[in-house]
Amino acid sequence: MSHARPLAPLNQVAERQAASLQLDDALQLPRIAIESVTPVVEAGRFPAKSIVGSPITVSAVIFTDGHDKLDGAVLYRAELEEIWHRVPLKDLGNDLWQAEFSVQEPGRYQFAVQAWWDGYATFTYELMKKFGAGVPITLELQEGEQLLRRAAENAGPEYAERMAERLQTLQDTQSVEERVAFFLDPQSTELMRLTEPHPHRINSSAYPIDVERKLAEFASWYELFPRSVTDDPTRHGTLRDVISRLPYVRDMGFDVLYFPPIHPIGRAHRKGRNNSLKAGVDDPGSPYAIGSEDGGHDAIHPQLGTFEDFRALVKAAKEHGLEIALDFAIQCSPDHPWLKEHPGWFSWRPDGTIRHAENPPKKYEDIVNVDFYAKDAIPGLWLALRDVVKGWVEEGVTHFRVDNPHTKPLPFWEWLIADIRSTHPEVIFLAEAFTRPAMMARLGKVGYSQSYTYFTWRNTKAELETYFTELNEAPWRDCYRPNFFVNTPDINPAFLHNNGRAGFLIRAALATMGSGLWGMYSGFEICESAPVPGKEEYLDSEKYEIRPRNYQQAGNIVSEIAQLNRIRRQNPALQTHLGLKVFTCYNDNILLFGKRTADLSNFVLVAVSLDPHNVQEAHFELPLWEFGLPDDASLHGEDLMTGHTWTWHGKTQWMRIDPGHQPFGIWRVRTTD
Amino acid sequence: MSHARPLAPLNQVAERQAASLQLDDALQLPRIAIESVTPVVEAGRFPAKSIVGSPITVSAVIFTDGHDKLDGAVLYRAELEEIWHRVPLKDLGNDLWQAEFSVQEPGRYQFAVQAWWDGYATFTYELMKKFGAGVPITLELQEGEQLLRRAAENAGPEYAERMAERLQTLQDTQSVEERVAFFLDPQSTELMRLTEPHPHRINSSAYPIDVERKLAEFASWYELFPRSVTDDPTRHGTLRDVISRLPYVRDMGFDVLYFPPIHPIGRAHRKGRNNSLKAGVDDPGSPYAIGSEDGGHDAIHPQLGTFEDFRALVKAAKEHGLEIALDFAIQCSPDHPWLKEHPGWFSWRPDGTIRHAENPPKKYEDIVNVDFYAKDAIPGLWLALRDVVKGWVEEGVTHFRVDNPHTKPLPFWEWLIADIRSTHPEVIFLAEAFTRPAMMARLGKVGYSQSYTYFTWRNTKAELETYFTELNEAPWRDCYRPNFFVNTPDINPAFLHNNGRAGFLIRAALATMGSGLWGMYSGFEICESAPVPGKEEYLDSEKYEIRPRNYQQAGNIVSEIAQLNRIRRQNPALQTHLGLKVFTCYNDNILLFGKRTADLSNFVLVAVSLDPHNVQEAHFELPLWEFGLPDDASLHGEDLMTGHTWTWHGKTQWMRIDPGHQPFGIWRVRTTD
Repeated sequence: MSHARPLAPLNQVAERQAASLQLDDALQLPRIAIESVTPVVEAGRFPAKSIVGSPITVSAVIFTDGHDKLDGAVLYRAELEEIWHRVPLKDLGNDLWQAEFSVQEPGRYQFAVQAWWDGYATFTYELMKKFGAGVPITLELQEGEQLLRRAAENAGPEYAERMAERLQTLQDTQSVEERVAFFLDPQSTELMRLTEPHPHRINSSAYPIDVERKLAEFASWYELFPRSVTDDPTRHGTLRDVISRLPYVRDMGFDVLYFPPIHPIGRAHRKGRNNSLKAGVDDPGSPYAIGSEDGGHDAIHPQLGTFEDFRALVKAAKEHGLEIALDFAIQCSPDHPWLKEHPGWFSWRPDGTIRHAENPPKKYEDIVNVDFYAKDAIPGLWLALRDVVKGWVEEGVTHFRVDNPHTKPLPFWEWLIADIRSTHPEVIFLAEAFTRPAMMARLGKVGYSQSYTYFTWRNTKAELETYFTELNEAPWRDCYRPNFFVNTPDINPAFLHNNGRAGFLIRAALATMGSGLWGMYSGFEICESAPVPGKEEYLDSEKYEIRPRNYQQAGNIVSEIAQLNRIRRQNPALQTHLGLKVFTCYNDNILLFGKRTADLSNFVLVAVSLDPHNVQEAHFELPLWEFGLPDDASLHGEDLMTGHTWTWHGKTQWMRIDPGHQPFGIWRVRTTD
Repeated sequence: MSHARPLAPLNQVAERQAASLQLDDALQLPRIAIESVTPVVEAGRFPAKSIVGSPITVSAVIFTDGHDKLDGAVLYRAELEEIWHRVPLKDLGNDLWQAEFSVQEPGRYQFAVQAWWDGYATFTYELMKKFGAGVPITLELQEGEQLLRRAAENAGPEYAERMAERLQTLQDTQSVEERVAFFLDPQSTELMRLTEPHPHRINSSAYPIDVERKLAEFASWYELFPRSVTDDPTRHGTLRDVISRLPYVRDMGFDVLYFPPIHPIGRAHRKGRNNSLKAGVDDPGSPYAIGSEDGGHDAIHPQLGTFEDFRALVKAAKEHGLEIALDFAIQCSPDHPWLKEHPGWFSWRPDGTIRHAENPPKKYEDIVNVDFYAKDAIPGLWLALRDVVKGWVEEGVTHFRVDNPHTKPLPFWEWLIADIRSTHPEVIFLAEAFTRPAMMARLGKVGYSQSYTYFTWRNTKAELETYFTELNEAPWRDCYRPNFFVNTPDINPAFLHNNGRAGFLIRAALATMGSGLWGMYSGFEICESAPVPGKEEYLDSEKYEIRPRNYQQAGNIVSEIAQLNRIRRQNPALQTHLGLKVFTCYNDNILLFGKRTADLSNFVLVAVSLDPHNVQEAHFELPLWEFGLPDDASLHGEDLMTGHTWTWHGKTQWMRIDPGHQPFGIWRVRTTD
């Protein structure tokens, strides 16, 4: 079934700490300690995540024995660059140091923390203390001169002139007071900072960091089945038809247009409507049953069109400011060409059949899975899958929504994503994982830009508060970007079944305001929610049939979605899931949270009533303290849905939310001056 | 001043994660993820701490792609052993696995977490599920037989007979029901557990763990100045005199008898009474001004006696169940032999003097410090200091209280402690560090068994609750054992100055109940507290003079201390600082906390009033839930100071504490059945 892997040696880490550490080894250990470096994922085994142009804040706890002063810097570079850039570290007190930088190109970067003994700072600190205490300092002044002369020897020729000037000035300085002033003079301290040797200098490990495009953190996804872009269920929609839908999608404010698989669909065991085992002659089959005599993952389903059509669509989408996301579902219909061409990529059963996908007693008879570690699958299968992705990237696809990545090996993803990004750092991978938390986080660690989430199953105030907060904390904060899909072809959330239009608006507000990333599967905007009875599945699922829709039908929430997306674009605080704080609202049916930019230039307060049926009222705390204001101060408010403005006076405020009108409020908050 | 150290390479960690990970490298990456292994300190750079005989609980998050079942084990061994011992890991759900082991000898150990795909468990799980769902399982039964045959090939000859028996039994089994039963039979599952190949097996790194004697975690320290063991301040006490005090110290229940430095005291700049700059002819000087013509750190102050006397004292102490702790203070009086013999071990000033210890404007004119990284000090000074410790260990000293270790290099301690422990794993090092938190923790990481703490400055309920709780959490939990000294020759805590006998009892109760380790400097038991006005220092400090005391004087708390120590010995829950939980008591003057053994066989509830002057009363919550009992259940209580017993009914209880009588209550709690 899978080939054995050599057992990793057991003594990697402990080696250095042999119970009897040798003196020679101890003398190589750093005198300065660097601990608790952030952002670091699994001690540097995996990269932390960031975005071009965003500040990357590096912090570390740095200390040494004794009372000498330290100084330090953060070094960083693109992984393939030779040269390290430097940013000075600031001492925040209690041994915590911090520096900030940002980069302008996506790609893999590295940073390290460097620290050293700052002899001159130690000297000036003691000099001032003693001078202030009236202690004799003749010796100290001599030692200061020694430090200067030693720095002059150490300095490169570019500092020779300035050093000579300083030493001459020192010679010309006579009184104790003047000499003290000389040593504290910024001309002296600055030059010493540049020229002094750095005793006990130490570098931390170099930690990786993946910097991606802004779209990795801030994007709105719209999902549709191209074959349903038709007004007649008997006429299969095409890629060309999708072009006609682009203005609609763009006007709602979406950035990414995502299609379920567009590849040839198998005939063997094809599923009929509502997942029935027998397909009718005209049933189109599930697009997830990939592969037929017309080709596999690198082909286009003939009824959708040709590669020429696809290129026209990508081009038109680009003109509409939309990028294309394809589904990458590593599974095959029994008709997939690989079964014949590469039988060794599959796991065969004693009766000569291939194990089909199943989750007993549930079966996916129209799908079989590859076996990544089958003897014959290495490296052929791995390379073939990589080439599939690469091929679509070369066709202009910039986003991949990966189907069930948690059922494929982690090393495969780590390799594939790194491989693609090494030449195409702009490509964004979204993990469609719904599984236990450790795997969800790990997929982010191995390279996924974004992930599906538990959002769909977080409905109460307590659940949402816990979840939003958790995503802002380690380990999630550094390795995982949540894409809040409000629905998917597979998930028709229970909350939407009987809560009407208000229910849809509640979930749309939570998703758009809660994360920089959200997604919607078509039908949501017309409040489609008929379930398979008792299940969170859609009745007449589009996975098994062509479903034209009337998107203008009464009660649609198209304009609300457009406005929510517009608010996201206009307010930088909303363009990430980070920085979210839940505030006090004295009603368990209303979730109140805020998001702010670091400089407070943008602050948005969001109140969402979780009750789609009744008016809810509540006192709440206006977060004056976030602006450094006292409890009796005032703030300026602006309703971002309506444009109304007002002034709030004092910390305790009142709100009333009528779900019949709009079940949420989104208010930009500013200081009044 | 110090020699340069090579700059560590910057690319240690990131190397493997080159943006374009090579396929061959990816194929070597483990398919199974092992994360969040505990107890691990700084990703395994430093050992975690444990105690002989204590359970070491290893936990890890372990998962893989897909739905296959995993199995795992913890491997451990003494560092120098060849053979790894195995303990099976238990699946606690949500990918968390746990195992427990303990060892009987002190020393450095290693452990690693191992995991693999459990093919047979996956098979039986699916078999049961399908059989239960009534799905045809002919193929599955064939596959089960395949698994058995493959295991038979893989198994060693020792399993041949049992494997043959199983295969024969399978042949004789006909019906589907019987075959299912056969595969689920423990005879089959157990044999498969032993013989099946372990696909995708992975080992974590090996993590170090330092296992020490019980005394490293549970000990009561008593500090005295041997020269004060006299009834006449003009007669210098001797090591022989100390022998006469041993019964007194032992009767109070102490384990460790600790002396400030016993080495020759310098004459140059000797300090007089109350730290005056001019010593009188008869002033004995500070024992911390180490070294004279009579010798240095390896010699005994002549007025205290000879090595023969010292050996007699160690022997007598042992007979009284006491171990000896010496002070290890790395500093020299200007008369120390090393100044002449090894001038290169010190840092010289421009005027040819050595920099004396100072904390401007405070000066320690009678002390100079060595320079660990002076060119000539490597390796001579390091070896000499190691030999000092080694020499005293060979004289029977098992404990070292190290003076100001945070002002000496961390690599020095890491080497010295490892070096001593490699031949004498029984030796215990106590760090006298009062500095910022990162350094306090780091000293534990580099090898200190115990440390002084912030306890002396934690007086209010909020402060104590925060501190006690913090010490039970990462990172402290795994690397730092707090020794709660109630006073030291240098610290005469403000809380004791005006709070009388009750104040001393409050602090004694907090220290003895709060941690497994506590310490007391003589004079505390007779409530000595006269300060240098406005300072937390003792008036007429024993550091500068001989101070005989009358330990029988009225108001002493000798019997209370003896009883507190007795309670500690009788109640295992009190023999560590770990496992402490603060419980609700509705009075900010009363701290209520509990400690329990894992099996609940010992549960002690401690209530300490922090008000030494007034009676305090309060409702409090009897922690019935800790016993798994409902709020209306009963518990049996026993006052461990008096022996009184009673039964508590219900969760809400009432207490009254009269500091005039006893400012605390210590109650053993049991279930009533």
